[in-house]
Amino acid sequence: MIELLIEIYKSLINHMDSATTHADLIIRAKELLIPIQTIHNASIMNAVGACGLQLYNFGQTISIPFFTDNWRPDSFYDRIKENRNLGLHTLCLLDIKVKEQSIENLARGRKIYEFPRYMTINQAIMQLLEIEENRKQNAYTSETLAIGIARLGSLTEQIIKAGTLNQLLSEDFGPPLHSLIIVGNRMHILEADYIKYFVADKNKFDEIVKRDYKI
Amino acid sequence: MIELLIEIYKSLINHMDSATTHADLIIRAKELLIPIQTIHNASIMNAVGACGLQLYNFGQTISIPFFTDNWRPDSFYDRIKENRNLGLHTLCLLDIKVKEQSIENLARGRKIYEFPRYMTINQAIMQLLEIEENRKQNAYTSETLAIGIARLGSLTEQIIKAGTLNQLLSEDFGPPLHSLIIVGNRMHILEADYIKYFVADKNKFDEIVKRDYKI
Repeated sequence: MIELLIEIYKSLINHMDSATTHADLIIRAKELLIPIQTIHNASIMNAVGACGLQLYNFGQTISIPFFTDNWRPDSFYDRIKENRNLGLHTLCLLDIKVKEQSIENLARGRKIYEFPRYMTINQAIMQLLEIEENRKQNAYTSETLAIGIARLGSLTEQIIKAGTLNQLLSEDFGPPLHSLIIVGNRMHILEADYIKYFVADKNKFDEIVKRDYKI
Repeated sequence: MIELLIEIYKSLINHMDSATTHADLIIRAKELLIPIQTIHNASIMNAVGACGLQLYNFGQTISIPFFTDNWRPDSFYDRIKENRNLGLHTLCLLDIKVKEQSIENLARGRKIYEFPRYMTINQAIMQLLEIEENRKQNAYTSETLAIGIARLGSLTEQIIKAGTLNQLLSEDFGPPLHSLIIVGNRMHILEADYIKYFVADKNKFDEIVKRDYKI
């Protein structure tokens, strides 16, 4: 019997560390009476504060999965809407496909894996705008403020850019991992001051803050 | 000029790491053209997943300050209510008074500091119930499920206990630091299964889950 199972939060910093996989691992270990210790580490859930938005002002975190030709899930739209109705920010974690098999390889039991894919901020925004176009419930628009974060926590490679969803759509954020934050309109003036460091078009930013945000 | 200001998230793990103090520090450094690097660490914001609730299902985080005889702030009640209306969990960070001066010592410029004080889970619950008694908007009741966490992240000293607010009121959680989670009724069955490990009165827990939670 394993004497001690140390469950290390490896923190591929863009991952949701404390989700179902970890709970499942711990529950199964407990059933086998294997003692467990958790060692915590940094996570996107707190490191996201680096963008200048305050963690107090975030609502529910969501995950955005890759659309396929016939699978375009959008249940997270309701979560964004709930957050936005309260004026809260939404942290969007973007899909990661690692060690995935094609349906054909899966069916034939061939352990051949597809190339890893990591959703970019641009892909996420495209999907978000498509969903809003379909749902038309005004959870956000192409002029809603957002923040794109790439390689968060990397001392040399981190990029943070802020602007409207439309502006960020054409920005290059480089290699993975990417995350996106949709800014809620309860944004505090100190948050706006801080975010401004990451904005290219400061005039447009000021205009939208004045028009759409309660500042 | 300081060549590099490394802003270390020291993570007294019950603290809100990424709040105003840090933003202020960074903004002032930037104004002085001092380069900044942030090194992230574990935080209550993600480590709270240790209680078995999923981070996706948390709403806004709140802070509960110590009541005084003539200062009994309750604006966080509205935040809890917003979360609870959506069925979301609320992480409550409890007040810490360190290096505080009495009003007399402050007025006389005497650098004499009070003993440090750390709010207990029991004190937090007492204040919460007092506020509900006054506001009567049913954001929660004494039978709402909650989880008390003490010394989160300590491999040997961590305590997690779950039950109704009323049940936790009389539990002993030991020395600081303490945090409290108010459980939202969108709780998933897997979350309930996990939390049950931390429940003393499992019959009462099952009864309330069945009655008040959407499971």
